[in-house]
Amino acid sequence: MKLNKFIPAIAGAAIALPAIALAQEEAVPGVDASTDSIFILNTLLFLIGGFLVMWMAAGFAMLEAGLVRQKNVTMQLTKNVALFSLAAIFYYLIGYNLMYPLGSWSIGSDETGGYLGAFGPAVLEAVGIGRDAADDYGYASTGSDFFFQLMFCATTASIVSGTLAERIKLWPFLIFTIVLTALIYPIQASWKWGGGFLDSQYGFLDFAGSTVVHSVGGWAALAGALILGPRIGKYKDGRVHPYPGSNLSLATLGTFILWLGWFGFNGGSQLAMGTVGDAADVSRIFANTNTAAAGGAIAALIMTQVMYGKVDLTMVLNGALAGLVSITAEPLTPSLGAATLIGAVGGVLIVFAVPMLDKMKIDDVVGAIPVHLVCGIWGTLAVCLTNSDASFFGQIISIIIVGVFVFVVSAVVWFILKATMGIRVPEEDEITGLDMAELGMEAYPEFAKG
Amino acid sequence: MKLNKFIPAIAGAAIALPAIALAQEEAVPGVDASTDSIFILNTLLFLIGGFLVMWMAAGFAMLEAGLVRQKNVTMQLTKNVALFSLAAIFYYLIGYNLMYPLGSWSIGSDETGGYLGAFGPAVLEAVGIGRDAADDYGYASTGSDFFFQLMFCATTASIVSGTLAERIKLWPFLIFTIVLTALIYPIQASWKWGGGFLDSQYGFLDFAGSTVVHSVGGWAALAGALILGPRIGKYKDGRVHPYPGSNLSLATLGTFILWLGWFGFNGGSQLAMGTVGDAADVSRIFANTNTAAAGGAIAALIMTQVMYGKVDLTMVLNGALAGLVSITAEPLTPSLGAATLIGAVGGVLIVFAVPMLDKMKIDDVVGAIPVHLVCGIWGTLAVCLTNSDASFFGQIISIIIVGVFVFVVSAVVWFILKATMGIRVPEEDEITGLDMAELGMEAYPEFAKG
Amino acid sequence: MKLNKFIPAIAGAAIALPAIALAQEEAVPGVDASTDSIFILNTLLFLIGGFLVMWMAAGFAMLEAGLVRQKNVTMQLTKNVALFSLAAIFYYLIGYNLMYPLGSWSIGSDETGGYLGAFGPAVLEAVGIGRDAADDYGYASTGSDFFFQLMFCATTASIVSGTLAERIKLWPFLIFTIVLTALIYPIQASWKWGGGFLDSQYGFLDFAGSTVVHSVGGWAALAGALILGPRIGKYKDGRVHPYPGSNLSLATLGTFILWLGWFGFNGGSQLAMGTVGDAADVSRIFANTNTAAAGGAIAALIMTQVMYGKVDLTMVLNGALAGLVSITAEPLTPSLGAATLIGAVGGVLIVFAVPMLDKMKIDDVVGAIPVHLVCGIWGTLAVCLTNSDASFFGQIISIIIVGVFVFVVSAVVWFILKATMGIRVPEEDEITGLDMAELGMEAYPEFAKG
Repeated sequence: MKLNKFIPAIAGAAIALPAIALAQEEAVPGVDASTDSIFILNTLLFLIGGFLVMWMAAGFAMLEAGLVRQKNVTMQLTKNVALFSLAAIFYYLIGYNLMYPLGSWSIGSDETGGYLGAFGPAVLEAVGIGRDAADDYGYASTGSDFFFQLMFCATTASIVSGTLAERIKLWPFLIFTIVLTALIYPIQASWKWGGGFLDSQYGFLDFAGSTVVHSVGGWAALAGALILGPRIGKYKDGRVHPYPGSNLSLATLGTFILWLGWFGFNGGSQLAMGTVGDAADVSRIFANTNTAAAGGAIAALIMTQVMYGKVDLTMVLNGALAGLVSITAEPLTPSLGAATLIGAVGGVLIVFAVPMLDKMKIDDVVGAIPVHLVCGIWGTLAVCLTNSDASFFGQIISIIIVGVFVFVVSAVVWFILKATMGIRVPEEDEITGLDMAELGMEAYPEFAKG
Repeated sequence: MKLNKFIPAIAGAAIALPAIALAQEEAVPGVDASTDSIFILNTLLFLIGGFLVMWMAAGFAMLEAGLVRQKNVTMQLTKNVALFSLAAIFYYLIGYNLMYPLGSWSIGSDETGGYLGAFGPAVLEAVGIGRDAADDYGYASTGSDFFFQLMFCATTASIVSGTLAERIKLWPFLIFTIVLTALIYPIQASWKWGGGFLDSQYGFLDFAGSTVVHSVGGWAALAGALILGPRIGKYKDGRVHPYPGSNLSLATLGTFILWLGWFGFNGGSQLAMGTVGDAADVSRIFANTNTAAAGGAIAALIMTQVMYGKVDLTMVLNGALAGLVSITAEPLTPSLGAATLIGAVGGVLIVFAVPMLDKMKIDDVVGAIPVHLVCGIWGTLAVCLTNSDASFFGQIISIIIVGVFVFVVSAVVWFILKATMGIRVPEEDEITGLDMAELGMEAYPEFAKG
Repeated sequence: MKLNKFIPAIAGAAIALPAIALAQEEAVPGVDASTDSIFILNTLLFLIGGFLVMWMAAGFAMLEAGLVRQKNVTMQLTKNVALFSLAAIFYYLIGYNLMYPLGSWSIGSDETGGYLGAFGPAVLEAVGIGRDAADDYGYASTGSDFFFQLMFCATTASIVSGTLAERIKLWPFLIFTIVLTALIYPIQASWKWGGGFLDSQYGFLDFAGSTVVHSVGGWAALAGALILGPRIGKYKDGRVHPYPGSNLSLATLGTFILWLGWFGFNGGSQLAMGTVGDAADVSRIFANTNTAAAGGAIAALIMTQVMYGKVDLTMVLNGALAGLVSITAEPLTPSLGAATLIGAVGGVLIVFAVPMLDKMKIDDVVGAIPVHLVCGIWGTLAVCLTNSDASFFGQIISIIIVGVFVFVVSAVVWFILKATMGIRVPEEDEITGLDMAELGMEAYPEFAKG
């Protein structure tokens, strides 16, 4: 997303610049829009986009609290608040400069494409700067950029918590969150958005993160799910036992929150709002993002009616999210019709992916792997359908490189955690529920159990 | 709301232009604000307004999920997600150009005032347009306009679902939603906001849709309620049996969400933010919208205390919504005091309208008809109190024309659906609850029933 | 926050102007940003900030509904909707001009620093003003300013309702709310933000209201709690009996809502967005506000794990809020690291303050006194750590003056209410629960009690 920041440095190199960078570039020398207003409006876009994406943390919390069983709700809420907070702290301490080294690569360089960014905490601009003191006057304030980018890192961590719910211990999960937000996410994100090798060598296009955010969360979750194992009784006697979510109102609320937040997620990733072209592009993105979600929801609605004879609300909710993930790699170039269809394919995919995971005995409590990993891959490939700058090879090689990196590193971390402190709660605690066993606090202490 | 788009075309005609159009018109030739910035700021207003109104979809979902009985919550959530998604798709496919034909009326013309707009899907501006390529450079980007207007269409559909809850089948309801969002809403909305005959021949004023949105939802709901009939046992033995909402926390949350979203609903309907006058006007609208909601809530609070000796939370919530609907036809011209009183009258009205509907054995599960239809009419008439451009005749004739059109067409559609696929669930399913009977999925499966 | 409004009037006086005023001042004569755009962008900041802070009303409602017991949820929801509505009306009727007399002090003057503002309802600018007709063209529209400031007044009232939950009668509480929002809050707020004596004589710095909003709510709540007494059975037999909150999902949702709203609370208090420096400063504030919340949450997470061997979700939630309150007096000057630590200290403080209050048998149902009063004081003192314009003496004397005023006046009002209409529900009503006893309406009528 933030590729444009270093464009001047590589302007002479013969690299295919993605469309989003060009849009920003043409803004800088704007004739009759003051450049101050470009700085201000871009900053405003990041602040609005950032608070909308921050709100997605609440969306994940509600979605997951609604989809776990009553006995694990407090734990799920605790994990969601804690992971967001840890992401905020560790992205500040380590992640931000690792992701955006601005030329100071530890391994690699802007010319060759970097592999490992810079180490050191984020530093904001001084109070009350003038235009000369702005870190990047043609772009936006550093504070707004940090705020916005942090939220993407936190989103990645939120994806993991849902899959591993109802059986993972609190502290190992939080330690993994630290590694993910401080290292895994920023390193791979730098390869594309920080101007690293995926961007410069492969022309990888990922507008707002179908791969960089969503599939990364999905791969980390998948590694965890495989190592952690399914919940007790889930795949007993060769059958899949459904564990219905305890509160579908909350799950629906969470989905609406995510849907709303996604306008900031995708719209803000235009990275610019200060020209006629950028304003119109952000608008396209809002409209396309919305219609892709609608397409995904309706596809899942129809599919579940046709396949099961009954509409399945949790599938419809995940269908909307699937549509959102699917459009995230390219929310700008599709027409409204194409965006609807790209989202609808996502909605169809998860209707098949959810039972397929169950067949493989991979226990994903909220369906995060189908939504974020499967549709993240689909969305990344779908860029080729509407954006002629994309190459199928560049997309697929990037999906693979990111996937292998994240899956392997995550697996190593999960194995180390398992070998040292253990990652799974004792069997009796899982049966009792994590709320009473681990936290001593029920989410709904006065509501009788059915 | 979007009247100004075609003002150039009718500038020579001797028509009383509403205040909002003038405000926009004076902005276009702005002397020292760059016209680029007007395009950008108007677009930004639509994007912010649009995401706030989108959020109202979650508000309706929570309000309705909180006011239905436990056994119908999953169904109500499903309907709300599905109707919003269908609105997004069918407003794109049909509704938008039907509502805003931009001179290409199928029946009528801009000069005489149109009756039926244009057919064809919405098309956004190309990626990265310059100012010359903007569809309407003096206004805002088409994408932002589409995004904003779509949300009003979806709001109209949301109103219907609450009234008909707990007994209507899923698919007939969704088919009605398609007709409403593709045809009924856009056609009548074109009469005012698309520059149709209500606007040009009657000088009808409806700033943000007390009639065009809220009463339309109310009329469609009323037609449905009459044809569908009341819930089993609701009016048994000549008495009204209250069916208390299952979750007042959700209902309150939904009300707060709607209250928040309404700032976008009314504020965005200024349609412009790029001049000093427009910015100050949007501010007036925010302040007036808020105080009208407060007036409605406090009026209902006092009324229920006085009449029943006890404050009734659901009335207070509906009182706030009543205040919001009441101010929607004219949130700009009233003073803060007048806005408070206009809202308070709305709050008083619903306290009487709710039991009156029950006396007529019209079963409205969430009180949508009192809130959106009764207060929609009141708000439309109240324009005359503070806006000298309004004529009582123009307002009342428009209320009647819109009401007759929507009620009759809706009734026809409901009758056809009833005659073909049936609209009501079997009696035993209604008693069991739609969640288990129709969807096989409870919203709160682990909470014991009281 | 609104200090800059009267700076011209006192520009000759030898007073230490706070940094926020200077930032605004330099914007007015901006060279290449049109002054129209400053008015528009500042107005936009207030509208966005205002709707975010309005959303905090929902956050308090959900937090409190989640932390009270099931039998008192409807009442808590009712109080929250009603107090916000009353704040809207009485801040309009009395509060706004009392807080911002703009030179027309009833007691005192801008030169000496005022003590009591002007009486009379708020009046907005006329519809469609030009720049010459703007009340304060170098600042923002009056409507946006009123809208934004109102939300701070309402926030103060929201703080009180949580502490006094589960035993206070509805109407006396609402009457206190009227006094608080019409008189107590505006009078003391005028001393700082209206340019009164705390600002001019003591150089008191409170950027967004650690003292002016949060500790004021806390003092009013403390006075109420002492006079009202603890809930029945809370401190029976010399032991503290915990009454767990009935719905931690709602409490978590409420916390996320407050976290989100706080970006508007602190960010909007920059009062300007129209220059490079202001845009960058608002960004710093967003980033610092977020990291302070994260610091508070993680501090409480670690502290409860260490002290009790188990993480306590309600402490983590209150820790996040504690971090937010702590950074509110100075969200601009700290670095990200300093902001994290300021928030973390807040998180530590509440872990000790909550049981300390219990030892003193002060029954604070949701922990509002630790969060808003204790951390409000801490945050106000912490200004000295990063802002060299602050004096420890000026801060502490202002804390004391505001504290004594609010506590004494609140106590008098509570005593009068107690002596006349009574403030506490009958014992049997408290045991039954306020929902059935006072309102005749349960929040969750169909959920069986455990």
